[in-house]
Amino acid sequence: MTAHTGYPYTQTITTRWKDNDQYGHVNNIDYYSFFDTVINTYLIREGQLDPVAGDVLGFCAESHCRYLQALSFPNDVDAAMRVTKLGRSSVRYEIGLFASGSQEPAAEGWFVHVFVNRSDRKPRDLPAPLRSALSRLLVNVETEVRA
Amino acid sequence: MTAHTGYPYTQTITTRWKDNDQYGHVNNIDYYSFFDTVINTYLIREGQLDPVAGDVLGFCAESHCRYLQALSFPNDVDAAMRVTKLGRSSVRYEIGLFASGSQEPAAEGWFVHVFVNRSDRKPRDLPAPLRSALSRLLVNVETEVRA
Amino acid sequence: MTAHTGYPYTQTITTRWKDNDQYGHVNNIDYYSFFDTVINTYLIREGQLDPVAGDVLGFCAESHCRYLQALSFPNDVDAAMRVTKLGRSSVRYEIGLFASGSQEPAAEGWFVHVFVNRSDRKPRDLPAPLRSALSRLLVNVETEVRA
Amino acid sequence: MTAHTGYPYTQTITTRWKDNDQYGHVNNIDYYSFFDTVINTYLIREGQLDPVAGDVLGFCAESHCRYLQALSFPNDVDAAMRVTKLGRSSVRYEIGLFASGSQEPAAEGWFVHVFVNRSDRKPRDLPAPLRSALSRLLVNVETEVRA
Repeated sequence: MTAHTGYPYTQTITTRWKDNDQYGHVNNIDYYSFFDTVINTYLIREGQLDPVAGDVLGFCAESHCRYLQALSFPNDVDAAMRVTKLGRSSVRYEIGLFASGSQEPAAEGWFVHVFVNRSDRKPRDLPAPLRSALSRLLVNVETEVRA
Repeated sequence: MTAHTGYPYTQTITTRWKDNDQYGHVNNIDYYSFFDTVINTYLIREGQLDPVAGDVLGFCAESHCRYLQALSFPNDVDAAMRVTKLGRSSVRYEIGLFASGSQEPAAEGWFVHVFVNRSDRKPRDLPAPLRSALSRLLVNVETEVRA
Repeated sequence: MTAHTGYPYTQTITTRWKDNDQYGHVNNIDYYSFFDTVINTYLIREGQLDPVAGDVLGFCAESHCRYLQALSFPNDVDAAMRVTKLGRSSVRYEIGLFASGSQEPAAEGWFVHVFVNRSDRKPRDLPAPLRSALSRLLVNVETEVRA
Repeated sequence: MTAHTGYPYTQTITTRWKDNDQYGHVNNIDYYSFFDTVINTYLIREGQLDPVAGDVLGFCAESHCRYLQALSFPNDVDAAMRVTKLGRSSVRYEIGLFASGSQEPAAEGWFVHVFVNRSDRKPRDLPAPLRSALSRLLVNVETEVRA
């Protein structure tokens, strides 16, 4: 795993045979699965999110991806993440995907989570451990990834 | 299947047990699979795209989704589509997803295809049957779905 | 949708672009997703299974598939189902998959569910509505699909 | 990654948020994706299989899985593999899945590949590099995993 400039957190994801579609490369939808995976791994491991029994759930409100290079099974992918907005109940992540070993992004995207109560599914303040973990990834981005 | 205002083409997609994630609703990445499916079904059935042996492939350059309502297995989903930009080699689609029977969108998104040669994977002019099929879905949108 | 001899219940499943793998046909793992889908749709719609809030969950204990013909996006698939064993807490289903319109199976498989309490995840007797729905699909099979 | 007794080849697979289904564990169909992944990774890396341009394709003829323990995102999975039959054109693999760090299998399964020509999709002799790679994983199993 390589560190990626501008992204404080990186995780390596192994690809699967099923990721490659009819055109021989990782299908566009799986990129979002990589986003979802790096984000939730961080929330669970660093921010004490408990998807099975916790009071708080993160719902995806919006997501976006710009595809720059093909990714391909069986090569690993580095999913690198930063936080660019940290609101009372919502978070905006930016994610870069890189073919393992490369510094050129294969894709750049963003993803917005709204945190809700498990009980009534209404937006709620981020719990302290989650806020603390996410604030460690907060960066000032002058030039954001644009839709 | 219901017609959806503003979208000239609609297709019903059946959901799968595996679509529902840990929070009991269709996972955010599957919405993109619905986009991919309605688009490619139309290209194959109406525009003579041949993904197995044809000269032309459509690569996803960019995609976006705004999530408005939960979708849930085992209910069907209507995927409704229009074309908002038809370039020499690229197309911009907008897609609305609706819980079957509802007129309120569960999600709105867009998706950009760049068409390339199978041989060298370089952008190329859209073949005539594809252009003709896509131009039938071209609409003037004053207020587009914004990222 | 066509009725399929020997299978009392049939459901049509729409395929997705992502189902086709690098070799241009529906990937072997998606066949199991079709099994999972026809079974759980029936349990929810006919047997009152409530995966979100109910007391009873069905866990897969064993599954098997024999692949006979290729299936391919964008064509529909008929998933046909029967019950061949109905125990106190477990059920054995047999499933035939058919390219829509065909009477020749593309695959034959089976799937064993063990029903457990949501609370302690221990096996439990099938609730009456589930047993009643499943018994309607119970057939005597002299020659079973063999592993 | 841990070595697993009786399986000469092991690969670690990272799980994804989307693997967990409504019941909070890796869905039964994803186990087959792990099978497919460890097998094809080995064929490509060790046996010179070229899924994009090679003359030979491997089609799945039959597969089976017995589920013993739950697997769960975000924990890694070890997929361990052996070959138990090596025919002229077909191969039978056995796969054990293990929660990373555990020696107790979470699942045991098998998978049969038939190798065909890309051109006519008819069975053909295994090419020498593939046969050589697979024979290195061939074991004598007195007690096989039974369907």
